[in-house]
Amino acid sequence: MKQVYLDYSATTPVKKEVLQEMLPFFSEGFGNPSSLYSPGQASKEAIATARMRLASLIGASEREVFFTSSGTEADNWAILGACDAQSKKGKHVITTKIEHHAVLHSCEFLEKHGYRVTYLEVGPDGVVGLKALEDAITDETVLVSIMLINNEIGTMQPVKELCAAAHERGILFHTDAVQALGNVPIDVKDLGIDLMSVSAHKIYGPKGVGALYMKKGTRISNYMHGGAQEGKKRAGTENLAGIVGFGKAAALAEGNLGEHIKRVTELREYLIDQVLSEIPDVFLNGNRKLRHPGNANFTFKYIEGEAALLLLDTKGIFVSTGSACSSESLEPSHVLSALNIPAEFIHGSLRLTIGDFTTKEDIDYVVGELAAIVVRLREISSVSNEKGW
Amino acid sequence: MKQVYLDYSATTPVKKEVLQEMLPFFSEGFGNPSSLYSPGQASKEAIATARMRLASLIGASEREVFFTSSGTEADNWAILGACDAQSKKGKHVITTKIEHHAVLHSCEFLEKHGYRVTYLEVGPDGVVGLKALEDAITDETVLVSIMLINNEIGTMQPVKELCAAAHERGILFHTDAVQALGNVPIDVKDLGIDLMSVSAHKIYGPKGVGALYMKKGTRISNYMHGGAQEGKKRAGTENLAGIVGFGKAAALAEGNLGEHIKRVTELREYLIDQVLSEIPDVFLNGNRKLRHPGNANFTFKYIEGEAALLLLDTKGIFVSTGSACSSESLEPSHVLSALNIPAEFIHGSLRLTIGDFTTKEDIDYVVGELAAIVVRLREISSVSNEKGW
Repeated sequence: MKQVYLDYSATTPVKKEVLQEMLPFFSEGFGNPSSLYSPGQASKEAIATARMRLASLIGASEREVFFTSSGTEADNWAILGACDAQSKKGKHVITTKIEHHAVLHSCEFLEKHGYRVTYLEVGPDGVVGLKALEDAITDETVLVSIMLINNEIGTMQPVKELCAAAHERGILFHTDAVQALGNVPIDVKDLGIDLMSVSAHKIYGPKGVGALYMKKGTRISNYMHGGAQEGKKRAGTENLAGIVGFGKAAALAEGNLGEHIKRVTELREYLIDQVLSEIPDVFLNGNRKLRHPGNANFTFKYIEGEAALLLLDTKGIFVSTGSACSSESLEPSHVLSALNIPAEFIHGSLRLTIGDFTTKEDIDYVVGELAAIVVRLREISSVSNEKGW
Repeated sequence: MKQVYLDYSATTPVKKEVLQEMLPFFSEGFGNPSSLYSPGQASKEAIATARMRLASLIGASEREVFFTSSGTEADNWAILGACDAQSKKGKHVITTKIEHHAVLHSCEFLEKHGYRVTYLEVGPDGVVGLKALEDAITDETVLVSIMLINNEIGTMQPVKELCAAAHERGILFHTDAVQALGNVPIDVKDLGIDLMSVSAHKIYGPKGVGALYMKKGTRISNYMHGGAQEGKKRAGTENLAGIVGFGKAAALAEGNLGEHIKRVTELREYLIDQVLSEIPDVFLNGNRKLRHPGNANFTFKYIEGEAALLLLDTKGIFVSTGSACSSESLEPSHVLSALNIPAEFIHGSLRLTIGDFTTKEDIDYVVGELAAIVVRLREISSVSNEKGW
């Protein structure tokens, strides 16, 4: 059976070139990067190369890049570390209602520890307003955390402007760029941000590696305490092969960025056009233009997204209802809820995300199967409704 | 040139069988374990198998095992999480002077946040006294953290008795078992401990994966906030291939434990006998019997361990002066300092740790080269001393 993976925002396959570069670091070049003998130093150099490659992709100095175990860890570190370092200045944080749970739950942890957190509303297309941020800032505010691209609806935020507004008031700015890395050009100097979280497994690198960009001079406490790794800022024996893989994935992403964006955006536009023309009673969530190149998030009225997901699975098509990270939860998507989509429609949403291995034929196959499944589910739903369901 | 790796306590090579089992999870079976479609569920099952294997190795239920990114993360989580959950009960923690930095620096972080920490002394052989612990307990004590096996001198602690003393006073007990896992039989039920940290890369698994054992019912706050992974207790997309590798390494360790301990202990005893008989002015650190099977830590009088390490490196022999994690620091080993070894000798220490790929011929080669290097360094040192160095 044909298989089509359209969940690149959940995770990506490790590219062959990436895995090839990782392989020697498992059983042969396995020296601990902190060890002083030559195999240890070789491991240390491999990490330095990876750091340089990732720094290059985001326009940072390699001294500003710190490897973590995930984007989630980078978010936790940025938020909890920045607040800890500034606890004498104030205890107010501003974020948005549509952040990733790694940000939202870090903020909730802060709330349990005496912090006040403002969760900004977004417009119907998921964009945060500059004025909303400016109005929320107080003398107690120590951190603003607003994502570069939303993981569910793909909306891009005007981070450069939002960051400038925070900086005018002397407030640190963090952005979760996990979905953005490798999918839009990122220049940390141009954006002006102080802290940025990224992850390898969204850009064809391995799971289990992330990084925190930290602008030189940013005051932030350590989050992972222990050995002297990562310039004494992040303890724990380095995920050597994983970091090497992240570096290679970053180099591939940088070399291919323009072509990747063009190709994926074209496929996305084709997918959106096909779905909106072939299937009735469906709308696109998020801003159509200010959008992750590969993201299409639809709401199909009168169906359950989860049922559609499972029927698509039987056809070898893999998509998600929202973010993978919250699939265990029965709560409706907090992102779609924030867009004021009527509650009865939110559960009918599907996220289809396109990547480097997606073809036009894949899209045609998916749209055909999806159209049939939506018809079938609506028939069931209409029968159920007649029964008073 | 012959190469002999004698730094298995710093890290181990990934065994071929482990890497083989990991490989399908990078580019093919790469589905996000949180995704509801079949490839995601297959990833979830692979993690469940790994969890069962690790649980089996330590005598736990699989519901008590939570994967982390490292032993360091498990230590941070155990200590900061247990204290956070009990902050209303009290703010006193007891640990020892010879813990890994992941424990010590987590405790120092607590000290910056209003906690009092008692660092227990150890005897000259590195063993913690039961009475010292009992005397240190107060009504404010919420956690005791004492390692099972020390990473530098290999000393085993009487954790079962120490834990019983803590439990008599209703206090949680955590042990860092990173060096112990796969090197001594561990039965968490028999030990009675509440929390235990372990790591994959010390048992021939990959770097970048660890785990926290948490006895059912233990009150502990989350440390990594975000998605619903690991039973909503530890967020972040799972290091899928890494976790699979940890599971396989655990299964291999369990199947081979008796033979491994016997073989490695014999080689260690041979190494210790050879060094003590072939090289003058040297002593063994730690307790010779209550000891990690593969650990030999020597102090060679009148030499610098780091110089010996670098000369051994030129002979293809890889050993360490202390723990890899603190190699960036110029401070003398906090572990050897706690043993009251005279300061002028501490810098002359070398840790040689034996593992599954070590042979008797390796030991003979190392002892021969080491003896020659010690002679050479003492000549330099004696010349320098004549010059008033």
